[in-house]
Amino acid sequence: MQDESRFATLPRPPYYAVIFSSQRTSDDETGYAATSQRMVELVQQQPGYLGHESARDAGGFGITVAYFESEEAIAAWRDNAEHAAARREGHRHWYQDLELRIAKVERAYGGVRRDR
Amino acid sequence: MQDESRFATLPRPPYYAVIFSSQRTSDDETGYAATSQRMVELVQQQPGYLGHESARDAGGFGITVAYFESEEAIAAWRDNAEHAAARREGHRHWYQDLELRIAKVERAYGGVRRDR
Repeated sequence: MQDESRFATLPRPPYYAVIFSSQRTSDDETGYAATSQRMVELVQQQPGYLGHESARDAGGFGITVAYFESEEAIAAWRDNAEHAAARREGHRHWYQDLELRIAKVERAYGGVRRDR
Repeated sequence: MQDESRFATLPRPPYYAVIFSSQRTSDDETGYAATSQRMVELVQQQPGYLGHESARDAGGFGITVAYFESEEAIAAWRDNAEHAAARREGHRHWYQDLELRIAKVERAYGGVRRDR
């Protein structure tokens, strides 16, 4: 689907990460998929959004990490009304459990050839 | 496999996160799985290790976030000789591409019932 763009292209740190871990219910795959896609479109319009990476396994456990320039940008995204409505639906129907962690990225390293 | 333990049980922030995103090659699933399992055992013996969460999707893209008490604990884990050898094998055989980001977790929120 988005084969080459699975990795976010980010500036040098520092920047902020929203680490979202979740266990899906088996409910409403269609509604969940549509809303997820819409949230990806919407966050890309959010000032200060830098990119995101996401993986969900066959057991329904997933991790999405979204990156932002600042805590203010994260707060503005949290307060987006359509995003808030989607979160409420998520809490009601789509997620058995979830954890959200806000972190400041201090260092980053990339590529398979680097020795570290 | 580890159905109820997919979420890490962590203390209150602050603590540190190592966010590891990777795209698997299709090579050597057996060796990769054995080494991954061994690294999970090994990191649990690392002083300052707090827990980790991990998801890899059917396309081979995965995110693992490992949590540590301090940057010193992350550096000690990086310098573990068996871990370093496993990383070299990963760079040679198992990963097409990868990104590693070190972040300080400042806030955390959990559970589906919380309004946020």
